Amino acid sequence: MNLAVGIDIGGTKTKIGLVDASGNCLDYLFFRTRDYDDLDAFLDKIKGSIDELIIKQKKPLHLVGCGVGAPNASSRTGTIENAANLKWKGSVPILEKLKQRIDLPMRIMNDASAAALGEMLFGNAQGMTDFISITLGTGLGSGIVANGQLIEGFDGFAGELGHIDMTLGDGRMTGLNVKGGLEAYVSATGLKRTILYMMSKYLDESRFRGIAYNDLHGEDITKAAEEGDPIALKAFDYTAKILGLALANFTAFTQPQAFFLTGGLVNSGKWILEPLERYFEDCLLDVYKGKVQILMSGLPDKTTAICGAAALIWEKQR
Amino acid sequence: MNLAVGIDIGGTKTKIGLVDASGNCLDYLFFRTRDYDDLDAFLDKIKGSIDELIIKQKKPLHLVGCGVGAPNASSRTGTIENAANLKWKGSVPILEKLKQRIDLPMRIMNDASAAALGEMLFGNAQGMTDFISITLGTGLGSGIVANGQLIEGFDGFAGELGHIDMTLGDGRMTGLNVKGGLEAYVSATGLKRTILYMMSKYLDESRFRGIAYNDLHGEDITKAAEEGDPIALKAFDYTAKILGLALANFTAFTQPQAFFLTGGLVNSGKWILEPLERYFEDCLLDVYKGKVQILMSGLPDKTTAICGAAALIWEKQR
Repeated sequence: MNLAVGIDIGGTKTKIGLVDASGNCLDYLFFRTRDYDDLDAFLDKIKGSIDELIIKQKKPLHLVGCGVGAPNASSRTGTIENAANLKWKGSVPILEKLKQRIDLPMRIMNDASAAALGEMLFGNAQGMTDFISITLGTGLGSGIVANGQLIEGFDGFAGELGHIDMTLGDGRMTGLNVKGGLEAYVSATGLKRTILYMMSKYLDESRFRGIAYNDLHGEDITKAAEEGDPIALKAFDYTAKILGLALANFTAFTQPQAFFLTGGLVNSGKWILEPLERYFEDCLLDVYKGKVQILMSGLPDKTTAICGAAALIWEKQR
Repeated sequence: MNLAVGIDIGGTKTKIGLVDASGNCLDYLFFRTRDYDDLDAFLDKIKGSIDELIIKQKKPLHLVGCGVGAPNASSRTGTIENAANLKWKGSVPILEKLKQRIDLPMRIMNDASAAALGEMLFGNAQGMTDFISITLGTGLGSGIVANGQLIEGFDGFAGELGHIDMTLGDGRMTGLNVKGGLEAYVSATGLKRTILYMMSKYLDESRFRGIAYNDLHGEDITKAAEEGDPIALKAFDYTAKILGLALANFTAFTQPQAFFLTGGLVNSGKWILEPLERYFEDCLLDVYKGKVQILMSGLPDKTTAICGAAALIWEKQR
């Protein structure tokens, strides 16, 4: 059986899985990225995890390659550059060091771009030539496909839509010390910040007036919206408005036929999606109205990133 | 001699020229677009103009095709859709109707996208795989090249960067009845509007306090800046700031290696370009700093659009 290894290096967890040619993740495991201050120890752990997965399969298999998704990774240079949420600073030659341990065809890419490739090969974007994937997690990640190809950029750092500024330089700070970046508004973290903003702006009673920021979780905001909490409702509306405007802006860039949403914020369901649809259509230029869909990712939640990383390998086999 | 016909349909002028395989425009002529309320009369005039150019050449030549650039034109459908600055409204089947008159291989595209193709084939973007052309005229037009290909979008309307909103929906109106569109700030018209805005905001003495908006011209603003007029200087700085931020945003999208600027506003030279460079580098994410150039178009000013239209044909011959 032919399988590809998919490795997703995240700020919190690193996930490793075995993925077949149809995008099924047969098995996977994960460990905490932050437990490894030392890069070499981290890479040894990855190597050990792959061996463990292979042994567990208990049947003959052929590994066709190893794909890696990581924040701030460049497909052109094979490095991770100054990732805000990883411990290893500067330019990390991750591909070169992994190749010393794993003798397989290997490819690395920005995690959100890899997710877009996974959506195209295995998910709901199959057959589409123009679409954009948006991951709404702790931050906002994105992968852009146009003319049937992933847009990688001149040296592999295209698709950083979480850092697009729509506030004329006068907005919230992001983790990268950038003012007004989209992810400061539209992400799980952005929603929490908007709860604070709405409590600062309005006088409504709200359960959140009794909860500290550090104790605030996304699911609590959804629950509060369900109970009619006015601050939660205002926060969802504001988040949806900014995301709707952003997606309308992105449409004027590459004119995708669809956006695919994934990540924690999407779990808030109708509270975010219904106003989003409305604001999006409202903000679209006439020439685009009614032509662009907002869809959910077709990949299983827990293994989306692994499938995306494996897609880097399977794309080359097709 | 092999030549391509390049036709640029603009809001004010329609230009028609003969262009060789190296992008040299051997001869061209133009007429006023607005003199033709009737589409058929307009297309007959185009046909007659091509015949006129051929006769003037006085030597044997072979026409390899006819390329057309027009605002709001779609390469996918061959139509012009609701162009704000053309008289013919709705969906205009321009390609079909031209083919009835001209028996040549024919291609149509958004004028700004055609200009990008011209830059890639004949101008300063030769050999580049990732760049963006920005035309700063009455409005702001753009053409995006990534992975060595023009980004056309799902049905041919990609690259409308003049309509990207960076004001969270609270900005100036554009001609398309859109709020906050970039071209309302960064264009020849946008600069004039910014003169008004600066006079509304500040109390500085300025020559523009004695000039009506309708009598205001771009070259006057450049001249005033040269004479130290504080309102003109503030207006250029503000325009450059918004353009710098916009180009930084666009970099986070496709990570081009260069932007190519063209159009009337560029004639203001250092007054716009020097602050632009500064704001642009300042707004770029660290991962992009020092990697993206702002360059001038390498095509001759008067025939840029004709060369771009002809490039639609020459691209297919290579």
